[in-house]
Amino acid sequence: MKKAKWFIFLASTLMLSACGNLENSGGQMTPEKTGTGEAVTTGQINSDSYQALMIEGQYKTSPARTMAASRMNSNYNLNNYDKGLLELSKEQFATDKYFFEEGQFLTVNLLKEWLARESSENKEGLNPSDGGKPVILQQIIEQNFMDKDSQKLAGISIGVALNSVDYSGDAAVEISDEEIIDSGKKIVEKILPRLRALEGVGDVPIIFGLFNQSREDDVAGGNYFASVVSKKGDKLADWQAVDEEYIVLPVDEGVNNSAAEDGVNVKYKDFKQNIQGFFPNLSGFSGKAYYRNQQMQKITIIIEAKYYHTSELQSFTQFVGNSVRSIFNVPGAVEVQINHLGVTSAVVMKPAGEAEVIAQVFN
Amino acid sequence: MKKAKWFIFLASTLMLSACGNLENSGGQMTPEKTGTGEAVTTGQINSDSYQALMIEGQYKTSPARTMAASRMNSNYNLNNYDKGLLELSKEQFATDKYFFEEGQFLTVNLLKEWLARESSENKEGLNPSDGGKPVILQQIIEQNFMDKDSQKLAGISIGVALNSVDYSGDAAVEISDEEIIDSGKKIVEKILPRLRALEGVGDVPIIFGLFNQSREDDVAGGNYFASVVSKKGDKLADWQAVDEEYIVLPVDEGVNNSAAEDGVNVKYKDFKQNIQGFFPNLSGFSGKAYYRNQQMQKITIIIEAKYYHTSELQSFTQFVGNSVRSIFNVPGAVEVQINHLGVTSAVVMKPAGEAEVIAQVFN
Repeated sequence: MKKAKWFIFLASTLMLSACGNLENSGGQMTPEKTGTGEAVTTGQINSDSYQALMIEGQYKTSPARTMAASRMNSNYNLNNYDKGLLELSKEQFATDKYFFEEGQFLTVNLLKEWLARESSENKEGLNPSDGGKPVILQQIIEQNFMDKDSQKLAGISIGVALNSVDYSGDAAVEISDEEIIDSGKKIVEKILPRLRALEGVGDVPIIFGLFNQSREDDVAGGNYFASVVSKKGDKLADWQAVDEEYIVLPVDEGVNNSAAEDGVNVKYKDFKQNIQGFFPNLSGFSGKAYYRNQQMQKITIIIEAKYYHTSELQSFTQFVGNSVRSIFNVPGAVEVQINHLGVTSAVVMKPAGEAEVIAQVFN
Repeated sequence: MKKAKWFIFLASTLMLSACGNLENSGGQMTPEKTGTGEAVTTGQINSDSYQALMIEGQYKTSPARTMAASRMNSNYNLNNYDKGLLELSKEQFATDKYFFEEGQFLTVNLLKEWLARESSENKEGLNPSDGGKPVILQQIIEQNFMDKDSQKLAGISIGVALNSVDYSGDAAVEISDEEIIDSGKKIVEKILPRLRALEGVGDVPIIFGLFNQSREDDVAGGNYFASVVSKKGDKLADWQAVDEEYIVLPVDEGVNNSAAEDGVNVKYKDFKQNIQGFFPNLSGFSGKAYYRNQQMQKITIIIEAKYYHTSELQSFTQFVGNSVRSIFNVPGAVEVQINHLGVTSAVVMKPAGEAEVIAQVFN
């Protein structure tokens, strides 16, 4: 593999990078104005991300945009719920063939009815009418995909968040995996015809993902575990398993998971030990790894460092950068945030598929 | 100029970069273990930054490290004071010939005496004995530079912070530029023999920088305005002007400064207008440019964005990245931080000397 090193000379910032995989770089930046019509997009940062349509210079937000944030029980669950649906969508709607748009069909009022318990006043409720049974369905999010040429709706993704613990009553109620799966599948069967009936949806493919919302104190956050596609009408294809994991590092002794098996856990512990001696006091250190189909996609590490001078931060960032480079010889991405009093003051990034590292001190 | 584009494919992160200036990239990563002896350094992120020496895996902090942070009147002044001295040092002590070490000679007790008013109990005080006169000398910081081969002390930098406004009394007292310059030069003449007398300093070159600490409510922060070198002994060379500016963007109407003259101000206003329409509400937008010898080195822009979904943040970051790329065709660096509730959630960086942009969403 050809490697071309580059060094950038800039005052008071640190940056290191080696650009590799030049053979792969066939892509070109997509212009902001699309070929046909008047559509303008956000532009594309890399070929693995969607361009989003913009209307008159403004991003088209979802009418239900404020709902998910207020209903999910932690930011960890909220982030995994959002990101996971984008990942799932990419399998169905290729980023080079579709534009992204925030979900436009599900409104706050509609969702409030659907997410409530079924009752004589609310026949649309998708949670059990029996008040003794836990609330399983917590939230529904929607993403839209537009055909690049016609700029017309060409696909919809729906993320269905299901509680592993229901906190809505006086006491928290645990819900078994079987109940979650069964309820999730039944809910999708009920939602599908309702979606098809909404004006403008028509017969575009819809992909549904079932998301297991983990306990509110779980710093890993939940994950998608199943998906199903409806090509058109009220017919669903076969359910597919979704294999994604968020693993908190280091892995507890004796636990066997992807990070323990592939050596990422050992590398993380080496890295942590290497870094922790640097300053007399280092107040926080946490890590998490994201796996998809048992392949490590990204490690995220957050370091809380107490420094007093820019020079200390610069030296520390250099040391972190070199430690990432020498220890994390992994195919996935590595991202280290260096925080000071909770505010990000520097970042170190190793992109997926690369050996070299980019570091940036903010000041 | 040869340009080689690259695209990185990574799950749920956005990254774009084109690597240019391959002709310039003669450097190699410096190993963490140095050639001679047992010295270990932080490693080097780019050739424009210093490697710092580490002792037994730990960074050697300064005995006076906590002092500057508590004495400077704002973080803007503190950052400019620290960074500016590093920039000044680079002119005297090349980053490829010297290792960096935090200042080891000035202790908290020594500085407390020096920074106080002169009195019969404290003959070392460098501020006026006359209580009716303002406190001009606010702080002294020190940086050490070690010869790469011998790993022995080979140079010292001293930053002398002088108040443009003295807040120590009941009322704030403004101090004229002439007073600041005169006092600063006299203080350096007094400090030099005291430094030479400290054990271990010997006859290494010492560079002094005079820093003008701006008002506590000035978001630009102060800057260095003069420097002088003592090659050895108590002799000072001629004073040199230091030309560095921190300019808050946009520049007020009618004001003439480097950013108004070279077009950076217009580009900033275009950029801001382009970005501000994106979301229905964008709560904060601020910018600053750093100039050295009238050349723009770096623009820093901080955007406070209220978003509800990861997909919104990703789309926004793409749009910001493409706007930076299309609007800021400048030789200097551009750094945009995208914050959410005060926490950095994404960054966009255009390195100095490059046309392309790197973007990263943290999640």
